[in-house]
Amino acid sequence: VDEQDLKKVVREIIGPEHTLEDCAVFSYGDELLVATTDMLHERTDFPPGMTDWQIGWMSAAVTLSDIAAMGARPEVLLLAIGLDRSDRLRDILEGAQACCRSCGTSLAGGDLDSHQELTLVSSGVGFSMGGRVVRRRGAQPGDLIGITGPLGRAQAALDGYRQYERYLFEPTPKVKEGQLLAKAGVSSMMDISDGLVSSLWDMLEANSCGYSVDSEKLPLLPGITEKKSREYGLYGGGDFELLFTVQPERLAVIGDNNHVIGRVIEERVVHVDGIPAERRGYQHHWLI
Amino acid sequence: VDEQDLKKVVREIIGPEHTLEDCAVFSYGDELLVATTDMLHERTDFPPGMTDWQIGWMSAAVTLSDIAAMGARPEVLLLAIGLDRSDRLRDILEGAQACCRSCGTSLAGGDLDSHQELTLVSSGVGFSMGGRVVRRRGAQPGDLIGITGPLGRAQAALDGYRQYERYLFEPTPKVKEGQLLAKAGVSSMMDISDGLVSSLWDMLEANSCGYSVDSEKLPLLPGITEKKSREYGLYGGGDFELLFTVQPERLAVIGDNNHVIGRVIEERVVHVDGIPAERRGYQHHWLI
Repeated sequence: VDEQDLKKVVREIIGPEHTLEDCAVFSYGDELLVATTDMLHERTDFPPGMTDWQIGWMSAAVTLSDIAAMGARPEVLLLAIGLDRSDRLRDILEGAQACCRSCGTSLAGGDLDSHQELTLVSSGVGFSMGGRVVRRRGAQPGDLIGITGPLGRAQAALDGYRQYERYLFEPTPKVKEGQLLAKAGVSSMMDISDGLVSSLWDMLEANSCGYSVDSEKLPLLPGITEKKSREYGLYGGGDFELLFTVQPERLAVIGDNNHVIGRVIEERVVHVDGIPAERRGYQHHWLI
Repeated sequence: VDEQDLKKVVREIIGPEHTLEDCAVFSYGDELLVATTDMLHERTDFPPGMTDWQIGWMSAAVTLSDIAAMGARPEVLLLAIGLDRSDRLRDILEGAQACCRSCGTSLAGGDLDSHQELTLVSSGVGFSMGGRVVRRRGAQPGDLIGITGPLGRAQAALDGYRQYERYLFEPTPKVKEGQLLAKAGVSSMMDISDGLVSSLWDMLEANSCGYSVDSEKLPLLPGITEKKSREYGLYGGGDFELLFTVQPERLAVIGDNNHVIGRVIEERVVHVDGIPAERRGYQHHWLI
């Protein structure tokens, strides 16, 4: 399967404007609504050791993170469940409901089916705050590049650093942070599910500028060597932090918990420490 | 798997108010929004002989039909696709897009993944017309029971009556009809995907009345014996017609294409020709 070919087919049929964002956007009176859907299934998406409760949590989290990435407020979440064993239902639903509640929303329905392989599809609808959502498109040369927290912890957990396991198994969608950044007027935003460099490439695709980050500005992960920590931070998948760009003069209002890691440049490349960085990282699913 | 046990678990965790309708309902200013999701997969939901284009059409149709059943206007449809073979993508997307267009909406995004078994989950959002949606709950004794068209054609096709194949493979969601019925003030509504009697049982569950239908009032299917035609009409699955109840004095405004087939009664039973009818029919998936 060539991912680029599939993307081309999707673009042709549903239109390029729908293939670049974390959510579909549609207007309603003076407000905007966002909607998104994510498929996860056992073999590909749930690392060994995850409980069913965590699987439910994760399936809600991926969708809530997409809504967070638009700076929107999640209003409703639906869960379609293809169950391989009926005794898994309760824990999965409870995990999904707990994640929804932690983000100020709740499960409002779904669909239930039997399936050979456990398959979960969560779909969510969110409302814009004050008629504006933040898109992947919008960065301008000179903007600063920011992230909402340390990167690479989920990948570290996958590699056996068990102190980071909850970042892998129970990731926190950055819903509040996304809304605050939207309010602060960031110029573009997305969530980093497949690694920072991969996400910068996604940003590049949606904009007409380039991205230059400085690996020394990535927060280090305690208990892991500096070199490995930077590698995880640049290329590790599974993080739920937000990646955004912001005009320097707005930096004061974006809050203390965010980290500035680079700058938007004219040249159409992704630079890490001044050197072009290839797209690599997680590629197990693709937004269409 | 005991379906009733699963439903109980769902009701416990997401609340009984979310388990009885075709869509989740939430308010937005003076309007209501509806959202729904449906999982279909190859082994269970796509009869042999269906093309990939029809599989795509069907996956959009089930969700659009749920929105139609609330009397709402579909605004956006998302499709999560778990592909077993990448060369199936184009036809599936084109079929789904064609179905959306036929209902006045379009595909606005989704998710793409690889999967051992072709698995499609469509999710949709709709807007109420004038601040009102029609629910399963709302029928009163004395109301008439109506349907939007002949029943049993999909089941007849499954049984080999090839003249009815397009009702099985390319069902038409009754979106316009649903909106007209909502405007006419019907008291309750749902779509009949798992057979008429099964749907009447679903209605019974949501209301505090009973249902009495007269099998002679079901439109007969040309080319099929009367007995078989009635059997298909009562118990056959796969139809996309709407089932509704309406006060007799509003009958004049519901339009010519609808068929009155019975009456809402006080007694908490489903009667066919005066005899209690057991719940049977398709049960391959369950709304939660």
